[in-house]
Amino acid sequence: MHILEIMKSHPGSSTEAAIPLVQGIEACFDCAQATVACADACLAEADPTPLARCIRINGECADIAHATGRLLSRRLPSNPLIWERQLEACAVVTRMCAEECEKHAKAHAHCRVCAEACRKCEAACNALLSAYRPTADTVV
Amino acid sequence: MHILEIMKSHPGSSTEAAIPLVQGIEACFDCAQATVACADACLAEADPTPLARCIRINGECADIAHATGRLLSRRLPSNPLIWERQLEACAVVTRMCAEECEKHAKAHAHCRVCAEACRKCEAACNALLSAYRPTADTVV
Amino acid sequence: MHILEIMKSHPGSSTEAAIPLVQGIEACFDCAQATVACADACLAEADPTPLARCIRINGECADIAHATGRLLSRRLPSNPLIWERQLEACAVVTRMCAEECEKHAKAHAHCRVCAEACRKCEAACNALLSAYRPTADTVV
Amino acid sequence: MHILEIMKSHPGSSTEAAIPLVQGIEACFDCAQATVACADACLAEADPTPLARCIRINGECADIAHATGRLLSRRLPSNPLIWERQLEACAVVTRMCAEECEKHAKAHAHCRVCAEACRKCEAACNALLSAYRPTADTVV
Repeated sequence: MHILEIMKSHPGSSTEAAIPLVQGIEACFDCAQATVACADACLAEADPTPLARCIRINGECADIAHATGRLLSRRLPSNPLIWERQLEACAVVTRMCAEECEKHAKAHAHCRVCAEACRKCEAACNALLSAYRPTADTVV
Repeated sequence: MHILEIMKSHPGSSTEAAIPLVQGIEACFDCAQATVACADACLAEADPTPLARCIRINGECADIAHATGRLLSRRLPSNPLIWERQLEACAVVTRMCAEECEKHAKAHAHCRVCAEACRKCEAACNALLSAYRPTADTVV
Repeated sequence: MHILEIMKSHPGSSTEAAIPLVQGIEACFDCAQATVACADACLAEADPTPLARCIRINGECADIAHATGRLLSRRLPSNPLIWERQLEACAVVTRMCAEECEKHAKAHAHCRVCAEACRKCEAACNALLSAYRPTADTVV
Repeated sequence: MHILEIMKSHPGSSTEAAIPLVQGIEACFDCAQATVACADACLAEADPTPLARCIRINGECADIAHATGRLLSRRLPSNPLIWERQLEACAVVTRMCAEECEKHAKAHAHCRVCAEACRKCEAACNALLSAYRPTADTVV
């Protein structure tokens, strides 16, 4: 991906916090892709019934991770609260999707790998929340 | 839109809280459309420079509202916290996008109408948050 | 939805072809919502296995219809070919998704209603293709 | 990204054509991210007016590339025509977005890098079109 190269030439850019942000963007797009692919693989299993909950949460996770990846791809939020709230949503859904996929990790490699992508995204969101969470001064 | 008709035939459906949910879904998709259209109209103005912040927050709002509309279109969340967090994100960004668009409402009808769509979505998200916010028992 | 109101205040707007465009945008967002809801209802059926193909094509249709709805929400394409190609993709996937959903229409009302939303979107895309298809002069 | 790992464990998977597909998926998500980031950087320039067309086509390209990346992330299309039509749309918009960004490549590094991401995606889509284009036998 070309994340850092474009970020460096953004007029409002600075080197501050760039690496966690790049990692967050990459993790969000990776997770958005992995969850679509995992849901499709679950659906193609001979009996998808026991994977219905996994397919559903994969869909929820893909929607939220993609929206979060797009938000972070704009160099700065219009307001820090927007990133904070969306990162919180993404941290929750990636954790829960990982927990569900981990239940099927032994039976299905796609669930094991998808859980890894979700955990990486969860960690990246939490790292950004620590870095970007608005202080009392910036909350509007 | 065909929201209620499909919802009524969902195997896990019940009449409970269906109307606020339908209104929330419709408001999210409406807001997602309006913000894309408003951003494009802003960009087509003779001088888009004073509207740069409006274009950016319209983009953020479109991403979050669409993800939220897709989430709500699945009849029940995998976990109530997922909806809660995403509805909080959507309530924040629609409020802030409305505030920005309202600044340009006199000069640009597209901003005035977009602000209305955002406010309606904000109200629908807050109504759903009141109805769906997990109690202490359901928080995991 | 607020489609026409925003479109009328777009700086590059004209009344020409506005109604088919509004209908196209509305049909795309409606179809994007209906297919997500139908896939979720299919997945919640006691045995989703015979609906696996329906769930998959609903997902494909939702992705394409939403992208098409966002494209059309920008008042004019950067180049007519972009709309033409995307409308062709949307006309194909909505037709095929409708065909699949119609197979299950008697058993599942959500499939019947979703097929209606897909057919309406297919018709709207084809109407726009007739109106907007670039002539030999505008093809680049 | 975890594309290949998940693809290898898909029940319907085969090694045939896996590498072009992985490259296509990666190029689509990369392009979807790059165009959002480039549009935001354009918008943050002191005078975004000369970049208005670039911002608009970046938005169109992001929508189409993301939808295409999600389609390809499902291991097989419901029908080859769906992929064919969407890949054609993606090949067109990435070419046109690259052409526009290349005009600004000397002045803005974000446009130069974004054009690279678009060109890579265009090439990947065309490679997949050559591999997947349905023959007369498979056209429905």
